[in-house]
Amino acid sequence: MDERELKKLVREIVGNEHTLDDCAVLACGADLVVATTDMLHEETDFPAGMTDWQRGWMSAAVTLSDIAAMGARPAIVLLAVGLDLSGRLREILEGARACCERCGAILAGGDLDSHRELTMVSSGVGFADRVVRRSGAEPGDLIGITNILGRAQAALDGYRQYEKFLFEPVPRSEEGQNLKQAGVTAMMDISDGLVASLYDMLDANECGFSIESSRLPRIGGVSPAASREYSLFGGGDFELLFTTPPETLPLPGLDVVVIGRVIEEHTILVDGEVAPDRGYRHQWRV
Amino acid sequence: MDERELKKLVREIVGNEHTLDDCAVLACGADLVVATTDMLHEETDFPAGMTDWQRGWMSAAVTLSDIAAMGARPAIVLLAVGLDLSGRLREILEGARACCERCGAILAGGDLDSHRELTMVSSGVGFADRVVRRSGAEPGDLIGITNILGRAQAALDGYRQYEKFLFEPVPRSEEGQNLKQAGVTAMMDISDGLVASLYDMLDANECGFSIESSRLPRIGGVSPAASREYSLFGGGDFELLFTTPPETLPLPGLDVVVIGRVIEEHTILVDGEVAPDRGYRHQWRV
Repeated sequence: MDERELKKLVREIVGNEHTLDDCAVLACGADLVVATTDMLHEETDFPAGMTDWQRGWMSAAVTLSDIAAMGARPAIVLLAVGLDLSGRLREILEGARACCERCGAILAGGDLDSHRELTMVSSGVGFADRVVRRSGAEPGDLIGITNILGRAQAALDGYRQYEKFLFEPVPRSEEGQNLKQAGVTAMMDISDGLVASLYDMLDANECGFSIESSRLPRIGGVSPAASREYSLFGGGDFELLFTTPPETLPLPGLDVVVIGRVIEEHTILVDGEVAPDRGYRHQWRV
Repeated sequence: MDERELKKLVREIVGNEHTLDDCAVLACGADLVVATTDMLHEETDFPAGMTDWQRGWMSAAVTLSDIAAMGARPAIVLLAVGLDLSGRLREILEGARACCERCGAILAGGDLDSHRELTMVSSGVGFADRVVRRSGAEPGDLIGITNILGRAQAALDGYRQYEKFLFEPVPRSEEGQNLKQAGVTAMMDISDGLVASLYDMLDANECGFSIESSRLPRIGGVSPAASREYSLFGGGDFELLFTTPPETLPLPGLDVVVIGRVIEEHTILVDGEVAPDRGYRHQWRV
């Protein structure tokens, strides 16, 4: 069973309302509250070579990225740490706090447990006047991303000059809020790869998405074929994927890359051909 | 290193503002948002004999109990599941959803990860006009609890007639909100034992707490000495501990047990003697 099948089961039990987007959304007076949670553990989620400070940073980053993807302002992050060795806690918390501060959020506590394998779950709460969801894309909208993709995957493949993108991904908090203000129609973060994210967006929309790989920014020092592969299918990037009506461009104060267009047909096209639905997926024994 | 020492480190890095209470508290317009997270994993947190449905129930219950302890109304629970076998997910989610429904909350999604050992982290968000904190107790206040204590521990010790209290603890959501309305001055939930909770409350107050063990409701079918021990030091109960000015009693619509009085001296007394600070604590290798 893979993640996608299990997510179907989750939707069957939990319902669609809160599970299609990066965050659950709640009304609070005239405002909205968004909330999200992400689990990481040593064996499968943290690349080799990371420091504990970076593991802490990344734990906060995954959740802050989900909040950014809704166009919300992050308020707090709570970190539950299943700790194997107590001496690791300080660096982990300091890394998480640094990432929160970078995004204007507060690390506001969490929970401690003893665990054989270091396991961290960060949960975040943010606020917004309105949110941008994965649904909402309209045929004719442009498809954009916030930066170069694939550098985290390149680092995983040994291009050490890109290690910082893999080890200390920066959540696009400010960009997410600015994109919302600019009027983008749909948004999510790209954590398991661009094409995988387009398929997630396909799940939430009746239209489809067509992108041109030549529009993806080239990764320096990597062959064109590898750059294309990393950008389309590589995981670990914390950039935002969004759709926006052409007339909103250029987006004020935002340096984005247009990579394609929303189409009527319910499919994902890369360079005119249906893209394989692959990217990073967890696998489980039954 | 034990949990208390590590919590000191957490306070050093994260600060006191959000870590003294069962939940972090945020302003949202005229309302307050509370948020909390709790980690449980198979090896140390789930008693033998539980079903997966009950593990799911308990995962939601720990977080809902924290929200109840602030006097807040629970809104959503997010559940991050580190899953060893995919076939376990349905029962876990159904149990968590049932506990949420019991408390008037919504199970609103979460995260899935593969894990060697089943690990669950529930995070919750609630709302309140105002909250009750662990601090706020005043000398002369009465100390109260919401129900019989120690039955979960009795079940752990083999009194199987009390297994339901251990396996399906009911968060005191309604009681917590009613206690807040009634004007209690300080509150928390009792998850690691009554005396351990009194010590946590001591940390948050300048006054002290004196209780009489003869006032603790007796656990039927258990010797008086064992009943006293379970009630004072046993973990696994999800009742609320609170302090309240005498004139607020009787609390409208609430059946509570008064067990003692808040005193000037900064100490914990049981039957007039300083109580040992013991209860359930995690231990870590350094």
